[in-house]
Amino acid sequence: MSGFDELVPRLRAFAAAREWEPFHTPRNLAMALSGEVGELVAELQWLSDKEIREQLDGGALRERVADEVADVLLYLVRFADVCGLDLAAEAHAKIDRNEHRFPPLEANPSA
Amino acid sequence: MSGFDELVPRLRAFAAAREWEPFHTPRNLAMALSGEVGELVAELQWLSDKEIREQLDGGALRERVADEVADVLLYLVRFADVCGLDLAAEAHAKIDRNEHRFPPLEANPSA
Amino acid sequence: MSGFDELVPRLRAFAAAREWEPFHTPRNLAMALSGEVGELVAELQWLSDKEIREQLDGGALRERVADEVADVLLYLVRFADVCGLDLAAEAHAKIDRNEHRFPPLEANPSA
Amino acid sequence: MSGFDELVPRLRAFAAAREWEPFHTPRNLAMALSGEVGELVAELQWLSDKEIREQLDGGALRERVADEVADVLLYLVRFADVCGLDLAAEAHAKIDRNEHRFPPLEANPSA
Repeated sequence: MSGFDELVPRLRAFAAAREWEPFHTPRNLAMALSGEVGELVAELQWLSDKEIREQLDGGALRERVADEVADVLLYLVRFADVCGLDLAAEAHAKIDRNEHRFPPLEANPSA
Repeated sequence: MSGFDELVPRLRAFAAAREWEPFHTPRNLAMALSGEVGELVAELQWLSDKEIREQLDGGALRERVADEVADVLLYLVRFADVCGLDLAAEAHAKIDRNEHRFPPLEANPSA
Repeated sequence: MSGFDELVPRLRAFAAAREWEPFHTPRNLAMALSGEVGELVAELQWLSDKEIREQLDGGALRERVADEVADVLLYLVRFADVCGLDLAAEAHAKIDRNEHRFPPLEANPSA
Repeated sequence: MSGFDELVPRLRAFAAAREWEPFHTPRNLAMALSGEVGELVAELQWLSDKEIREQLDGGALRERVADEVADVLLYLVRFADVCGLDLAAEAHAKIDRNEHRFPPLEANPSA
């Protein structure tokens, strides 16, 4: 069990086994998501781009950032699930829209 | 192309075709992620849980929330990619840790 | 020293005495602000409105929320200062604009 | 009316005149605060420190950032008010605690 598609059923089972479903409203999960993104940003806030690069190559920062991105994804997957949204499909649909909104450089007629 | 695994190569190609790679530093992408989560939370901020439920069943709120979760996932996927992290694997590893940290109710010896 | 106006000089002196000024760029301070707001939201994320009310009347939640709002204000004051903005004046100017944008109920001609 | 202390009564009157008080719960205001900070961070997300400095000296970025810091302060003041917290006093108390937690460089015995 290591793919993205398994996250939805795993998180459903996790919440059910702990009777956490009543707490997993869209509002609460959006707030939890906001809190986790705050923690992720806080990991980087006093570091230069160069320091971030170096410390992401290994060690404590890498582990802390990996832990935070996991938390963000878990709350995002759970939020989308309780909202009845197919997260990966919405993301692909958004890239489709972005491709029209921001034409690639090759499409520049003067190129 | 609609699965989660295709998001990483699609976003790499998208950034490359627009020469946006220099902007896609971990810091910048973490900030962009924070901005998108703020927009998601803002969609729900004045609504009751009941109103959110009703309006998520269809209509404008559903579309706006779907658009925002897509943006959040896209920046999260891109952030993890430029950090060299396997997002789905980190999420599963985090659930593993959470299963130890928060034992399910069945595990309660007095039950 | 307990008024709002003293916060700007106190925070300048605090940063100078620790040689933290090079870290206090607008970007870094905006990120720090984002992190602190995430912590504030996280304090409330699993509680009902009723529980928040009760727990704000005293005890640990009140102290934690007080600590977080202080952190948010400190980073906001410092951010505005390094940006050369007069925070209180900007806030009053924004209320002025909001008064035009959202007319009060008394102004409704049909009332 | 341009000082910090006038913000609390102005915002109370503003909410009362529009009958917005029922919406101004701690949760809702914390979410609104989170959304505004997201907008502030988003203003800076693709700019270098040098670009931010230059564009803050005048022009559109300065105005947008001034507008966002005002929004953040307004929701923070309102949040603290409905929670029964004295925002400026909490901020000073936090600086007091930080002065103990992070001694200034002068206090270094080896200096």
